[in-house]
Amino acid sequence: MKIQPVKGTRDFYPQDMAVRNWLIDGWRRVSIRNGFEEYDGPIFEYLKMFQIKSGEEIAEQLFSFEDRGGRKLALRPEITPTLARMVNQKINSLPRPIKWFSVPRLFRAEKPQKGRLREFFQWNIDIIGENKNIADAEVIFTTLDYLRKVGLTKKDIKVKISSRKLLADFFTSLGIPIDKHESIYAVLDKKNRLSAETFEQMLLKQVSDKSIVTKILDFMNTASIPEVENLIKLESEEFRAFQDIKSVLNNLEFLGVEDFCEFDPSIVRGLAYYTGIVFEVHDIAGNLRAICGGGRFDNLLKDFGGRLMPATGMGMGNCVLEILLREKGLVPKKIQERHVDYFVALADKVFTKKLYEVTAKLRSMDFSAVFSYKPLSGLSKQLKEASSQNAKKCIIVGSEIENGQLVVKDMASGEQQLVNADEFLSQLKPKNEK
Amino acid sequence: MKIQPVKGTRDFYPQDMAVRNWLIDGWRRVSIRNGFEEYDGPIFEYLKMFQIKSGEEIAEQLFSFEDRGGRKLALRPEITPTLARMVNQKINSLPRPIKWFSVPRLFRAEKPQKGRLREFFQWNIDIIGENKNIADAEVIFTTLDYLRKVGLTKKDIKVKISSRKLLADFFTSLGIPIDKHESIYAVLDKKNRLSAETFEQMLLKQVSDKSIVTKILDFMNTASIPEVENLIKLESEEFRAFQDIKSVLNNLEFLGVEDFCEFDPSIVRGLAYYTGIVFEVHDIAGNLRAICGGGRFDNLLKDFGGRLMPATGMGMGNCVLEILLREKGLVPKKIQERHVDYFVALADKVFTKKLYEVTAKLRSMDFSAVFSYKPLSGLSKQLKEASSQNAKKCIIVGSEIENGQLVVKDMASGEQQLVNADEFLSQLKPKNEK
Repeated sequence: MKIQPVKGTRDFYPQDMAVRNWLIDGWRRVSIRNGFEEYDGPIFEYLKMFQIKSGEEIAEQLFSFEDRGGRKLALRPEITPTLARMVNQKINSLPRPIKWFSVPRLFRAEKPQKGRLREFFQWNIDIIGENKNIADAEVIFTTLDYLRKVGLTKKDIKVKISSRKLLADFFTSLGIPIDKHESIYAVLDKKNRLSAETFEQMLLKQVSDKSIVTKILDFMNTASIPEVENLIKLESEEFRAFQDIKSVLNNLEFLGVEDFCEFDPSIVRGLAYYTGIVFEVHDIAGNLRAICGGGRFDNLLKDFGGRLMPATGMGMGNCVLEILLREKGLVPKKIQERHVDYFVALADKVFTKKLYEVTAKLRSMDFSAVFSYKPLSGLSKQLKEASSQNAKKCIIVGSEIENGQLVVKDMASGEQQLVNADEFLSQLKPKNEK
Repeated sequence: MKIQPVKGTRDFYPQDMAVRNWLIDGWRRVSIRNGFEEYDGPIFEYLKMFQIKSGEEIAEQLFSFEDRGGRKLALRPEITPTLARMVNQKINSLPRPIKWFSVPRLFRAEKPQKGRLREFFQWNIDIIGENKNIADAEVIFTTLDYLRKVGLTKKDIKVKISSRKLLADFFTSLGIPIDKHESIYAVLDKKNRLSAETFEQMLLKQVSDKSIVTKILDFMNTASIPEVENLIKLESEEFRAFQDIKSVLNNLEFLGVEDFCEFDPSIVRGLAYYTGIVFEVHDIAGNLRAICGGGRFDNLLKDFGGRLMPATGMGMGNCVLEILLREKGLVPKKIQERHVDYFVALADKVFTKKLYEVTAKLRSMDFSAVFSYKPLSGLSKQLKEASSQNAKKCIIVGSEIENGQLVVKDMASGEQQLVNADEFLSQLKPKNEK
């Protein structure tokens, strides 16, 4: 029986796994240094949890199934609903501020394509319980803190920031009723993936008035706050939406990342639950989908049966990011190679017990240590095996051990040393305390 | 809409997540120091992959579903079939030895109970391509290397070792045909979870001869190799099975862990694909299910369409392990607390920009650094917030900054120091290089 992997999934051989771990460790470290704590939820939840608030695209792409008890379940396509459920469950006992991150494995039953798999990882950071714009700025700063750390510069990426509130106010000023807004957002979010013609037709279907479509298109094409201010007549409410964006940009300047950020009214986001600031990070070359996106979702916790609770966050998948980092040569080659600290070689079978003793001792000190399963093939073959595993040092257990000695060979310099075995082993310090 | 988590799943709040990360990081570090490389496969595979070789219990407990293309898929209940598929796919290009580990999230649609959830993590280590007993011993040593590292001693746990080959030879000597063996293994594996009566009845159903049942029971109750040797007449083949066990025990002695290990013919393992050495680790108090188990599965790669390729491995779930470690007080309290390196407090709103600058600089050096979202509540409230997050140090940005100075307060000693801001920030060394 020969079995294939399912399309849209990925096998992580050690080399691929090293890259995945490098990405995820980076997300973790940056989250922690920005004061976020890690959480996670289950891989599957009740189906209805993802059908109501996530928006049409996600609800259409669910992997769903029933358990033996007839419960309708689904593999999580995003973790934000789980976050809302978990925070609601313990809202009175959670220490504030709630600054949480997670690196969930997520699933979307879509057609696999470049940068989109049916199974992927997504870094999520969220700040809950805080309505000030500094929280939105912290989310964007943390996102950039990671992207800068791996070597991306302002020549590579741009954060595009807008506001759903601004869009809503604009739509309302055009006479579009509020219950229509969500479906228009869904169309606007697809703009860059559609031809201009198809996009216009889809918009026309939603608003059925060509002059309004033209106004929406004009708005989407503005490039700065003054341009938008020229385009639409400001009421006090809209002024607040502008103030939000300006305040976030101002905080980002204080945090030293203003060069990466710009206002871009064409940013909408696909998810249905955003209520205020929204943003996406794009590669400047513009060949890829958004690297990540996020925004404010002040109603979601209430919609999931909790209190009204402000919230803002970001999600970044591993697929587009990895493509970009590989294109830019920013994935370190070294992490993809096999490494060991010590290779323990055997010059004569009679010393097997000592070989195992030395290996066990090295391991107990947190050094990676291996020996050959074919010690009878001779010392030179063992040294070759050590080289192929990029061993830093080789310890040779041979007749010298009868005088209590071991040979230690530095694999880079080729230098060999005779050392007293007991002294050498007893003086080893645990690797990570060095 | 108020939604509950699905039963048998687990929410990981930051405190729980810290314990989960501590467990998994321990597995990772021990795997690496024993020379294993990490891999992973997809969360779901074709359903048939888990129905054929894993045994009845697993096949009955699958979460299965269809994708839009009508493919029958299942959430992985174990990773060994994926390992076999992945190794077969690249058998000619994989560097040897193949010593791989993984920490997959797994799923079994069973009734949740103590130590058994429907979603869990399992540490897997496997050595492929090596038929020598040292490979089996390495797997057992690596398992013990972890269990000892977290503080379990020979008073807490015992490795019980037997051999499927020995069982097969014994059954054959009793006249039981080979095609019956697998279903008897499945019954024997349930021994400790059944009453003596039910167990005997189930055995009788398989072999339909009371005298044979008695012989099997006698065999299962022996406690040492000599006892088994007394019980059954040794043919040359059976002798080889004994030699395997003796050789593994001998290697474990050389590796310095013989005190943890014993021969126990009652060990069978539930999975259908084992062919030789099998083992389980049990808590000596005996209140829990096996902490982990493993063994040799020399036919699995061939059964999955590859070459005949010897293989031996181990799987350890997080549920029983976590219960045991908590019972023994071996889960460190400290990891479950919130920590930050620096809390940056603001004495006057006019210095907000400096506050953000200092925070951003600390973070870029890999220190976790946070500030209050309520700086206007005053300095003493901010210091309280710092304490509640167990901040090591507090930096106060106040009027001193007009002279280029910051106050640095050590939160443990309460000691305060005035430092030159530029000097302090420029002399910071990246946290992990210290």
